[in-house]
Amino acid sequence: MTRIKQAVILAAGQGRRMGGVGPKALLRVAGREILYRTLVALRALGIEEIVIVANADHLEKFEEFLASHGFTARLIPNPAPERGNGYSLHLARDAVDGKFLLLMGDHIYGPDLLWEAVRGEGLAVDPAPRYVDPDEATKVTIRDGRIVAIGKDLPEPDAFDTGCFVLDPAIFAVTGELVAEREAVELSDVVRRAGLPAQPLPGRFWTDVDTPADLHRARWLLISRAVKGTGDGLISRALNRRISTRISALLVERLSPWVATWIAFGTGILAGALNFLSPITAAVLYQVSSILDGVDGEIARASLRTSPLGGWIDSVLDRYVDIFYLSSLALVSDLPIRFWPLVVWALLGSVLVSYTTERYAGAFGQDMYRAVPSMRFLPGKRDERVFLCMVLVFLGMARELFWVLAVATHLRVLLTILLGARRHAREGR
Amino acid sequence: MTRIKQAVILAAGQGRRMGGVGPKALLRVAGREILYRTLVALRALGIEEIVIVANADHLEKFEEFLASHGFTARLIPNPAPERGNGYSLHLARDAVDGKFLLLMGDHIYGPDLLWEAVRGEGLAVDPAPRYVDPDEATKVTIRDGRIVAIGKDLPEPDAFDTGCFVLDPAIFAVTGELVAEREAVELSDVVRRAGLPAQPLPGRFWTDVDTPADLHRARWLLISRAVKGTGDGLISRALNRRISTRISALLVERLSPWVATWIAFGTGILAGALNFLSPITAAVLYQVSSILDGVDGEIARASLRTSPLGGWIDSVLDRYVDIFYLSSLALVSDLPIRFWPLVVWALLGSVLVSYTTERYAGAFGQDMYRAVPSMRFLPGKRDERVFLCMVLVFLGMARELFWVLAVATHLRVLLTILLGARRHAREGR
Repeated sequence: MTRIKQAVILAAGQGRRMGGVGPKALLRVAGREILYRTLVALRALGIEEIVIVANADHLEKFEEFLASHGFTARLIPNPAPERGNGYSLHLARDAVDGKFLLLMGDHIYGPDLLWEAVRGEGLAVDPAPRYVDPDEATKVTIRDGRIVAIGKDLPEPDAFDTGCFVLDPAIFAVTGELVAEREAVELSDVVRRAGLPAQPLPGRFWTDVDTPADLHRARWLLISRAVKGTGDGLISRALNRRISTRISALLVERLSPWVATWIAFGTGILAGALNFLSPITAAVLYQVSSILDGVDGEIARASLRTSPLGGWIDSVLDRYVDIFYLSSLALVSDLPIRFWPLVVWALLGSVLVSYTTERYAGAFGQDMYRAVPSMRFLPGKRDERVFLCMVLVFLGMARELFWVLAVATHLRVLLTILLGARRHAREGR
Repeated sequence: MTRIKQAVILAAGQGRRMGGVGPKALLRVAGREILYRTLVALRALGIEEIVIVANADHLEKFEEFLASHGFTARLIPNPAPERGNGYSLHLARDAVDGKFLLLMGDHIYGPDLLWEAVRGEGLAVDPAPRYVDPDEATKVTIRDGRIVAIGKDLPEPDAFDTGCFVLDPAIFAVTGELVAEREAVELSDVVRRAGLPAQPLPGRFWTDVDTPADLHRARWLLISRAVKGTGDGLISRALNRRISTRISALLVERLSPWVATWIAFGTGILAGALNFLSPITAAVLYQVSSILDGVDGEIARASLRTSPLGGWIDSVLDRYVDIFYLSSLALVSDLPIRFWPLVVWALLGSVLVSYTTERYAGAFGQDMYRAVPSMRFLPGKRDERVFLCMVLVFLGMARELFWVLAVATHLRVLLTILLGARRHAREGR
C-alpha cells in the first residue's frame, strides 16, 4: 500500500441552498467549521499536504480561517465554480503528484471512515448509510467492483456515494477530456467516465450539509456521538443523556464547555442552598444539575474542544456539589446527633467511589471502565446516586437515604478494589 | 556511536570475605539479588545478549536463578576462578563479537551510570565517589585520558574504578598475552597493560559488596534512594522518612510491600478504634501509622517490586485510615450537634486534597508534583495533617483541629486547582 501524503478538498460550492452564507466548508456545525473537522481528521491520519480548491471570491475567508487556526494548506482559486466540482478537481491537477485523498468541503467524515478509506482505492461507498437522507444522497450501481452508474435517481442502487475518494493522478486525464468536451463537469461525470473502483464501507459516520435542515441534523448527529458512555449509569442512559444531548444541541453553537461546567456547578450549589427553603425543590434541582453535568462534556467533544484541564476541574466541582447538597440536606433533616457519624460515612463514601475509580487512571494510565469492563455493571454511579436522592427525598426518607449511601458507596469501593485487584493480580509486585 | 548489544558479567568470584555464602552475584541486597538488579538495568538499556562467566561449581545455581525469573543469558563456566577475574574475562572471548559492556557480578550500578557509560568507552571512573569506602576501593591514575596506574594503594589517585567498562574485542589480545604469561590475571593487570581510556562519571550511584559490612551499607543506600520524595511534606522529610527508612532497611529482606501496606493500614485503623479508650495514645498511633505508611513504598522501590496496583490500593486505604481516625475522634470529642457539619467538611476536605492531586494524574497522565513543582510548597500534605492531629489532640484542642482542617484542606484544594489551571491555561479548551 502506498502511503497517501496528499489530500484535495473541493470547497468551491456557493452554498446556495444554505441561503448564500458563504462557503459551506466554513460553516460551523456543532461549534466547529466543517473544514476544521476535516483538517483535524487529516492531521490524525498523518496527511500533511492539503490542497483546497475554493471559490475565487472566497479566497480571503479561507486564508483567514487557516491562519487563525494555524493550519497550512495550498489554496487553489476556482474562478468558475458554476462549471461544477469535476472542474474544481481538474484545477488541482498540478498540485498533486501521487495517490491522493479527495474529500468534499461540505461533508463531515468520521475518523474511522477516512482511516479505512485510505487503505483501499476508488470511491468509498456505503451500502447501508445510517446518517444521511437516502432520498437526497447520490447513489451508485456497482458491477465487478466498479461503479457503472451514479446519480440521485438510480432506481435500484447498490450503495451511496460517501464523497471520499482515493485517486491517482491518472484521473486528471479523465477530467481533462471532460473539461474540453463540455462547460459543466460534475464529479459524477468523472466517476462514470473513469469507471472508478468502489470500496464498500457500510454504516461508518459521514454526512453532508446542503440545506439548513441538513445542518440541524448534522449538529444533532455530532452531539449524540459526543456522549462519553463509559461511566454512565442506568439513569444517565435512560434519562439524563436524552435531555442533556437536546440541551447541548440547542446550545453548542453559543456556549463554551467552560460556561456549561460552571452553569452545572452553580445549579448544584443552588440545589444545596435551596435545601434550607424547600428540600423537594432542591432535590429536583440537584437532579437537574446532574443532567446539566453532561452538557459540558458533550459540547466539548462535539466541538473538538476537550481538554484534560476541563475534565479535571469538572470532576472536582462534581464532588463539591455532592457534598454541599448532601450536607445541607443532612442539616435540614433534623437528625439526632448519634446519626451524624452515618452522615459522615455516607458523604465520604460518595466521594470515595469517585476517588477509587479515578485514582485507578492515575495508577494505571487508563480509564477504569475501559480496563475493567465488569465495572460498568456495578451500581452506584453518580447519576444513580443523585436520582436515588431525589426519589427518597420525595418520599420523605432522608434518613434511609443516608443509610443506603453509607452502606452502598463503601461496598462499591470494596468491589471496585476487588475487580481491579483481580484484573492486575498476575502482574505481581 | 556503535550501539552496544552485548554485556559480559564477571561472576566467578567465590565471595570468601562474605563467609562463603555462594556466588556474590546471587546475594540478595534489599530484597533482590545483585544480578537481578544488573539484568533489569541492562534490559532497560536495550542490551539483550548477556554473557555471565560463573564459577563452574555454581553453574546450577545461576541456571536456576535465570530460569525462575525468566531471564535469558549465556553462562560460561570458569573452572579455575582462582586465576583471577582477568582470566574470567578471557573466557568470554568467543562469546562477544563487537563493542561490549563489562560489569562486575558483585557491583550494584545505578541506571544513570550505565546509561552514560555506554555512550563513551574504556573504564568508567569516578573522581568523586559518594557511595563507596575510598580506603577499600580500587584507585586509578589518569594521564591524557588514559589509565596509567591502577591499584588499591595508589598514593594520589585521580579517580576510582567503578567496575563498569566499555570494551571492544581487541581486549582479548591483551588478556591472551597475560593468561599465557602468568597464572593469576586480575582485571587491573588487563587495564594496566591495555592502557584503557578513562571515562570520568563523578558521583553516580555504584557500589560493590565484598564484606557483610558492605552488604549492610549497600542495603541502606538502596533504601535511602527509594524514598519517593514528590508529595512528601515537611514532617515527612524531617521525621517520618528518617524512621521509616530505618524500619525498611531492617525489614526489606523479610517483608513484602503488600504486608507492609496492610500493617500500616491495620495500625491506622487500630488508632481509630483506640480513640474510644485513649485519644492521646490513639493520636500517637495515628502518627506511627503515618510513618509506617512510607515503608511499603520504600521496600517496593528498593527491591524493584513497585506496581500500580500496590500504589492504587495503598492510596484508597490511606483515605479510609484518615476518615476512620477522624470520625472516631469526632465521636469521642463530645461535640454539640451544630458542630457536626464542620466535622463533615473537615473530613471531606482531607479526602478531597488527595482526590484533587491524584485526579490530576488521571487527567494529564503525570504526577502533579512533577508537572507543577510549586505544588511542593503548598502546606497540608497528609504527613503534615496527621502530625497536626497528634499535636492538637495532645493539647486537648480537638475542636480547633476540625476548624483548621475544614478551612485549610478546602483552601488547599482551591490553590491546587488554581496552580493546575495556571499551568494548563494556555492549552485552551
